[in-house]
Amino acid sequence: MAESRTWTAALLVIGDEILSGRTQDKNIVQVAVWLNEQGIRLSEVRVVPDVTERIVSAVNELRASHDYLFTTGGIGPTHDDITVDAMAVAFGVPVIVHPDARGTLEDYYRDRPGGLTDARLRMARVPEGAELIVNPASGAPGVKMGNVFILAGVPHIAASMLEGLTGKLEGGRPVVSVTVGARAPESDVADLLRETEAEHPGVAIGSYPFFKDGRYGANFVIRSEDGDLARRTGDDLAARLREAGFEPTEGGI
Amino acid sequence: MAESRTWTAALLVIGDEILSGRTQDKNIVQVAVWLNEQGIRLSEVRVVPDVTERIVSAVNELRASHDYLFTTGGIGPTHDDITVDAMAVAFGVPVIVHPDARGTLEDYYRDRPGGLTDARLRMARVPEGAELIVNPASGAPGVKMGNVFILAGVPHIAASMLEGLTGKLEGGRPVVSVTVGARAPESDVADLLRETEAEHPGVAIGSYPFFKDGRYGANFVIRSEDGDLARRTGDDLAARLREAGFEPTEGGI
Repeated sequence: MAESRTWTAALLVIGDEILSGRTQDKNIVQVAVWLNEQGIRLSEVRVVPDVTERIVSAVNELRASHDYLFTTGGIGPTHDDITVDAMAVAFGVPVIVHPDARGTLEDYYRDRPGGLTDARLRMARVPEGAELIVNPASGAPGVKMGNVFILAGVPHIAASMLEGLTGKLEGGRPVVSVTVGARAPESDVADLLRETEAEHPGVAIGSYPFFKDGRYGANFVIRSEDGDLARRTGDDLAARLREAGFEPTEGGI
Repeated sequence: MAESRTWTAALLVIGDEILSGRTQDKNIVQVAVWLNEQGIRLSEVRVVPDVTERIVSAVNELRASHDYLFTTGGIGPTHDDITVDAMAVAFGVPVIVHPDARGTLEDYYRDRPGGLTDARLRMARVPEGAELIVNPASGAPGVKMGNVFILAGVPHIAASMLEGLTGKLEGGRPVVSVTVGARAPESDVADLLRETEAEHPGVAIGSYPFFKDGRYGANFVIRSEDGDLARRTGDDLAARLREAGFEPTEGGI
């Protein structure tokens, strides 16, 4: 099978609430899973506070070192929402009110109390040159600037922005995972795992131990862009585990 | 009140399983909360794959730019556990078997089937010059190397390693949080929030919107190293919200 280029992405999570431990992040998992479906590999995540220079330097580092950069958080109407302004600084452009975003907000707030206030209009601000990401879930659109995609921090809104992007980014082949579990202490199968990985070039095997129902065990996850290879390696690993006296469980425990 | 120095930490999460979306990270929250109790501010998080050069460069960047660096993941007995080796590369030292760690493992495996195998002995490997972090939860100790603390990836083992470190790191004052909630759309109170923050130097106010029971609302989190100041600002914010027609809820919604 021909080698295919690997497309990579980074995720920048912007938010004091994650770094303070107040909020459990849920965007890493959903962005990772969605990216894999697009054939793009999530290769790094950073979490930085709501501080302009921290966002700017992370954005400029990560957009240069990856095919795509996604950000979550900091795009609401309040004073602590500084992602758009920081992005403009990172790209060296001014912030403008995007005419389409203004239009969307005008429609959305036409019949709502208060109408389109200045604070609400903040949500139509974008770095000059940005495009909008359709967001069926609320009036506020996501923003695409170069290879950077600016998503909301609230997970279900971020999800709907990703939905709007599905199938639109160039990618390669998704990584296929095959999981085999066993009630084996990791250290008893360490050699067997290393050998199995070495004899199947093109796969990576991860070992994830657990302690459940009073017994140790581990799930072994075989990952490859070649689905057949991943499945063959899974079968081989299951056979080796059985030979070593551990009953393998396909799909994991 | 005298200015106190702010102590900072970074967290490096090492693991393909987080970047693939297979595993929901639980260490960021627990490390963040524990650090705050020690008077240390979590200032950045990175997640990198199980790739030596990626770990090495992240370690060297983050240990230089923060007072402390914590890592989670990659310290088990299998081939994909490369954190200790990568750390040795980052510090330019060899990997050795730590005599105390070997002793702990010898005791632990003395009466267990198989005894202390080579694979199990892998868990006693440390970068030369490292100290051990007591871990009451299992035989494998955490590792301290310079200002870097190497913790397990499994959350309850990481938690017990943190417990072993409680009160032992130099820090400043914990950040105190006061939360006030209201059934107010964020954009209706954006000006009020900005003014409240500006009039109370030394606090940061974060605004975290939600949609619950069919209505919009937000929680406003006031953070400061000065607990009295945080509480006074909370009272002031509650009064301003009430004046604007929104019933404040102390402690958040």
